[in-house]
Amino acid sequence: MARVSQAHLDARRRQILDGAAVCFARNGFHATSMQDVLKEVDLSAGAVYRYFSGKDELIAAIVGEVLGQVRASFEEAARLGPPPMPDILVSAVLGNVLAARESLTVDGRPAFPRLVVQVRTETLRNEELSAVLSEGYGAVREAWGRIVEAYQAAGMMRADVDPDDVARTMIASVLGFIAQQSLFGPVPVEVLRDGLRALMSVSEPKPEV
Amino acid sequence: MARVSQAHLDARRRQILDGAAVCFARNGFHATSMQDVLKEVDLSAGAVYRYFSGKDELIAAIVGEVLGQVRASFEEAARLGPPPMPDILVSAVLGNVLAARESLTVDGRPAFPRLVVQVRTETLRNEELSAVLSEGYGAVREAWGRIVEAYQAAGMMRADVDPDDVARTMIASVLGFIAQQSLFGPVPVEVLRDGLRALMSVSEPKPEV
Repeated sequence: MARVSQAHLDARRRQILDGAAVCFARNGFHATSMQDVLKEVDLSAGAVYRYFSGKDELIAAIVGEVLGQVRASFEEAARLGPPPMPDILVSAVLGNVLAARESLTVDGRPAFPRLVVQVRTETLRNEELSAVLSEGYGAVREAWGRIVEAYQAAGMMRADVDPDDVARTMIASVLGFIAQQSLFGPVPVEVLRDGLRALMSVSEPKPEV
Repeated sequence: MARVSQAHLDARRRQILDGAAVCFARNGFHATSMQDVLKEVDLSAGAVYRYFSGKDELIAAIVGEVLGQVRASFEEAARLGPPPMPDILVSAVLGNVLAARESLTVDGRPAFPRLVVQVRTETLRNEELSAVLSEGYGAVREAWGRIVEAYQAAGMMRADVDPDDVARTMIASVLGFIAQQSLFGPVPVEVLRDGLRALMSVSEPKPEV
């Protein structure tokens, strides 16, 4: 009995978060009202406010969930010795994040890339959200730093570069890849995987013989 | 006489574009009025409207200028045989774009990364701006594709990856790098340069002996 009830609560919470994510992706955080969210999820105010006090809590929960998933994936990879190659690792983690949210759409397109852009804009003026993002970003960056150290220790990567510089660059490639999709439509993660793979193969031009 | 006058017109145009860029970076495109721009540049409406019909023309000119500069840099690199290594090329072009705008600040921080985020959000609802961005992005992507082909022809990069995948990945790394700065403050371009350099050195783990 209690188990069913918990499953029901979880499903309801999921439904609210997903509906809010679609609203925020569609119109941005600022232009979305709690009324819009209620309409989207087709629930009463009482049912929704039981879970979330308002928009701020909703966006923080949505962002926290994504960052938590990303963070856990990279922290797990950091414990492997040696970790998967960067192209494999990045595309696997991003693929999972996108797959978990592929049912959420705006105008028939995946909502997630739009949501990322909207959240980023909101972060410029919302200190609480900025703090959530900053903490999650810091954790992912730290995990990436440890992954890079493992590459370097295994002789897989030049050791004269600060691991944090590589961490920032890897995160940048994923953020930018998502941003492109918000502008120009969905792109398979294999594009990023293969692009990184090619970049990993770059060497100085061979001297002409 | 005519030359002085043209220089004056150019300087005035520059002043308006820079002031508008700071306004858009600070509050976003939507929340900025032409009154805000006039106040920022300290010019009369007559003086400003002589150059630009309104906000839409201003943002299109600002975005077009950045994209034009980036596009020209990569098209020039594409003509070199072989082009500079990716880490050098990316950091040089991004360094130039940032240096040209480093005098523009919001709350003492560089305005440019914030501007990029604001423009991206506005693009979600502004079809004209979206078209400007889409065209510029397409040109940069094409130039990058030719650069990748040159790497591959020179034996500097594995040839079994679609050049367009690498083009998208390189652009993603730069977009994401700028996005990080809008959230977490300025970062020297050398971070991206060194991160890419380290990524270029990645190889499979050596089998244990």
